[in-house]
Amino acid sequence: MSPKQSYWSRVKNWASTLPYLGKAFGAIKTAGAELLRLPPPRAPDDVANTKQYEEHKSKSYMDLKMAFRDIGRMNAIVETLGRDFLTAMPEGAYVSRLGQIAFLFRRMHEELANENIANLINEAQDHQKKDPGNWEVWDKANLREMETMYRHVSHVPPDLMERKARLAYEGRRKHRDVLKCDDWDEARPFLEDMVDLQRRIADAKILKDNDHATDAPYQALLREYVPGARLTEVDALFDRLETKLKEILPWVLDEQAKRPEPQPLIGPFPAAQQMWLNKSLLKVMGFDFTRGGLYETGHNPVEGGTPDDTRLVIKTSDAGNFLDSMKSALHEGGHGIYIQGLPRETWRYQPVGQDLGAAMQESQALLIEMILGRTKEFYRYLAPRVEGLFQKFGDPAMTADNIYRLKTRVKPTLDRKSADEVTYFFHIRHRMRLERDMIAGRLKVKDLPEAWNAGMKELLGIEPTTHAQGCLQDVHWFVGKFGYFPAYTLGHMIAAQIHDKMKREIQNIPELMASGDFMPIQQWLAAKVYSQGRLFRTDDLLMEVTGSKLTPGPLINHLQDRYLEAA
Amino acid sequence: MSPKQSYWSRVKNWASTLPYLGKAFGAIKTAGAELLRLPPPRAPDDVANTKQYEEHKSKSYMDLKMAFRDIGRMNAIVETLGRDFLTAMPEGAYVSRLGQIAFLFRRMHEELANENIANLINEAQDHQKKDPGNWEVWDKANLREMETMYRHVSHVPPDLMERKARLAYEGRRKHRDVLKCDDWDEARPFLEDMVDLQRRIADAKILKDNDHATDAPYQALLREYVPGARLTEVDALFDRLETKLKEILPWVLDEQAKRPEPQPLIGPFPAAQQMWLNKSLLKVMGFDFTRGGLYETGHNPVEGGTPDDTRLVIKTSDAGNFLDSMKSALHEGGHGIYIQGLPRETWRYQPVGQDLGAAMQESQALLIEMILGRTKEFYRYLAPRVEGLFQKFGDPAMTADNIYRLKTRVKPTLDRKSADEVTYFFHIRHRMRLERDMIAGRLKVKDLPEAWNAGMKELLGIEPTTHAQGCLQDVHWFVGKFGYFPAYTLGHMIAAQIHDKMKREIQNIPELMASGDFMPIQQWLAAKVYSQGRLFRTDDLLMEVTGSKLTPGPLINHLQDRYLEAA
Repeated sequence: MSPKQSYWSRVKNWASTLPYLGKAFGAIKTAGAELLRLPPPRAPDDVANTKQYEEHKSKSYMDLKMAFRDIGRMNAIVETLGRDFLTAMPEGAYVSRLGQIAFLFRRMHEELANENIANLINEAQDHQKKDPGNWEVWDKANLREMETMYRHVSHVPPDLMERKARLAYEGRRKHRDVLKCDDWDEARPFLEDMVDLQRRIADAKILKDNDHATDAPYQALLREYVPGARLTEVDALFDRLETKLKEILPWVLDEQAKRPEPQPLIGPFPAAQQMWLNKSLLKVMGFDFTRGGLYETGHNPVEGGTPDDTRLVIKTSDAGNFLDSMKSALHEGGHGIYIQGLPRETWRYQPVGQDLGAAMQESQALLIEMILGRTKEFYRYLAPRVEGLFQKFGDPAMTADNIYRLKTRVKPTLDRKSADEVTYFFHIRHRMRLERDMIAGRLKVKDLPEAWNAGMKELLGIEPTTHAQGCLQDVHWFVGKFGYFPAYTLGHMIAAQIHDKMKREIQNIPELMASGDFMPIQQWLAAKVYSQGRLFRTDDLLMEVTGSKLTPGPLINHLQDRYLEAA
Repeated sequence: MSPKQSYWSRVKNWASTLPYLGKAFGAIKTAGAELLRLPPPRAPDDVANTKQYEEHKSKSYMDLKMAFRDIGRMNAIVETLGRDFLTAMPEGAYVSRLGQIAFLFRRMHEELANENIANLINEAQDHQKKDPGNWEVWDKANLREMETMYRHVSHVPPDLMERKARLAYEGRRKHRDVLKCDDWDEARPFLEDMVDLQRRIADAKILKDNDHATDAPYQALLREYVPGARLTEVDALFDRLETKLKEILPWVLDEQAKRPEPQPLIGPFPAAQQMWLNKSLLKVMGFDFTRGGLYETGHNPVEGGTPDDTRLVIKTSDAGNFLDSMKSALHEGGHGIYIQGLPRETWRYQPVGQDLGAAMQESQALLIEMILGRTKEFYRYLAPRVEGLFQKFGDPAMTADNIYRLKTRVKPTLDRKSADEVTYFFHIRHRMRLERDMIAGRLKVKDLPEAWNAGMKELLGIEPTTHAQGCLQDVHWFVGKFGYFPAYTLGHMIAAQIHDKMKREIQNIPELMASGDFMPIQQWLAAKVYSQGRLFRTDDLLMEVTGSKLTPGPLINHLQDRYLEAA
């Protein structure tokens, strides 16, 4: 096939000559001929003036750009298949859908983890050394990220990954079952297998990293979620935060005890109105509904998609409390606005055009959900409007002050998901210690329940009476996500640090929030964070934006300001 | 990469090691970890005991099966992307979505139209010759269909296809614009280009077919939609039908004039109830909602998907007439039940597991929509229920007799889409003549309007006063679908012929329909047609099922029985 033949010719070739594809083409041509209703004849995402397609002196780098574009496309397709799965797919399509997704992952792997890519990367790196003048910063960053992606997938033996896959798929069901029956005896052997496997995967990664730091295996796992993280640095950050929070938590509770308890919300808050509210808030915050949407699901909330198609999925099942679905909407919306702000026109499918991973993702979600979304000013905007929307004029629970008190109430909980902003860290700290000890072999799975309860007692002063309220509550370990938890707190810190800077650069944030004008905030974040993609690594981006590496100071200050305000 | 590595290992490999894919994996793992909630650890659609995976003595054929499975998977993915496009995708994702679809088509083309496939087919054919005992009928048919697919795509030069693609995409817009402004001058040069191009594509196909029959170019185009069709045979069928219909149409109109006019429906018929009705009817008819669904769209209706995920898309926009959306639902439902009945467990993605193309597809749609769906018995089932559903007790328009009269009213129309069952053929005949004359060069595009109007006058006795009501009404020619129209009438004939046989094998069809028991009908069709996939070619299947090649007799009898009933 001639390389000059465009995609479109190939599309139509298929379209018109293959009876086999008649059905598929039905969707595109007959009625889906609607697919054809926008500007012809330019090929669709082959916009010639993007950086993705810009010619480069290094032929190898050009080849890499095309290879990663195709990988990115497959990734985007998987996003759509996943979103469709959650919101529209008929149940009976489950098995074949998984086969299709697995097929795309296989193709992505095959097209990334091969010698050709390795050679191209080497050649492009050589070119960069010899001819640095022809490498702009974005291209350099793109090549760096390509190399990282390649390195990540090329080193773990397939048999370990196969086992991990199987265990993860079993784990989802296992977790559901053991949670329902509070069945530790059933959970234990499964978790033992999982820890053993995770450890072996981590060891394989260390060999390649040539990094023999203490807890190197755990660090290798952590890096799946926080690229380039060093455990010693995370420890130092968490230690400082823990010390400070332990100091202020009693004061916070003391101060809080002096204030009246908030009035509880009294429903009903119909699901349709909750959805309307959530969509409207996202619009106000700059989420672009022409390139995304907010959908309802019976599943857990999800953010995701691509900058061109960012669909957020939440639950609105609780008619007694609109604040819960609003929390999800603001959180997923924070992810979504980040995704939408990535440099799609220039770098659409390229590695440098992607987000910075779980910690940075969580930071943008928590910045909206917790830091901005729990201010008095935001509730001043919100309160009169929800009084109207839910037809509750004069309801004392619906005042801005009361909503603020409801949303900033601090109270240690057994459950991570319903934790407040101050004690949330202890849940993370707790889990991180335990998973790290398990990976290091210092904690046996059989001793997990005891260690769990002891840790809760130590950190939060409360103890679960069931395993379901305790060490079985999260699905993460069951699906093999060891090393994920720290991303939540790192994200919280990043959010506070960025917010700190933002407050100094946009001086009237409180007024803007109270009047529902989020545009200056959204534009600032877009310029500083979203549009930067992976031009910088996380630490360097923070340095660029805030003038400092990651530090817990801003988060501590934020929590003190908000929760010791009356002190 | 070791071939022993399963899909799942690759999925999870990606899942856990690629930060880049974090978002994609979010949808699958985090909350979309719901994806994992069904039976582990078996790989999803790799069910070992299907024919698709059954070992075969011919190694080449095994390789072909795997190659076509992957092509089939991509096709299924395109189906989902197309359905999502029509029902859920945000507008702004349009450009990138087209790029993704084009990408998948390119991959499908690359994986089919290459020398490796050609060699494998040759080797498998040799094997079959030398060792026929090891080739079951389904495998033989599968190899035959593989060869057909390959032959179809491998022969047309890429530059012609590229031009066709571009024109088709322009054509969709062009049609919309010229239709709106009734602008023939704008349409003409575009259609001239399109006819010229279609002719050249057809010529390329003929060279390879080595078929120099009269109108061979048009035949080559026709075969895109009716595999293996011979124009002389189609002509003979259509001539017989035309002669007979010209004879009976005046009688039909005469008889009809003696009967009272039907009472018009008086709305409103709310869209939500229409959708409920349409879904309920599909359920009654055996459509499996666990493997599909009926959705609403602003676009034109579409059938399609795969046997595992068959989503039908219709409009319910007319609150004044529930019969229009019901017509769409029954039509698309006919397609859908056919698709769902294909041999998915055994041959899921293999060519032999697919449907028989446009003519057979239309036959199954028209069998449900027109032949069974316009019987008095069906309306006896329907009428009391819609009286209740739409709260119209005692409305004289809602009786079974009146609905029957409404749906069987014969009246020549300018518009193909609203034509009745008797005059519909003349619209097809008319278009087929014109497109064939244009492809043969006997009719210049500039003379199309005149020829259109003359043909309408001759065939139906009426003439349009605008181009929009005339030769601009259909989108087909603008998107390059020359040769598609005959599939509608061939489908109608096939439907009547199959129905004829079915009536003799299931003796109480009227009683079954009146009581809403479609199961015996659906099971009969499933056994005789749906489950056969492409085991037989269309003509051979008809011979198997009805004992006869395609003939217009049954359709003529059907139309006489229904429309001359009172004579």
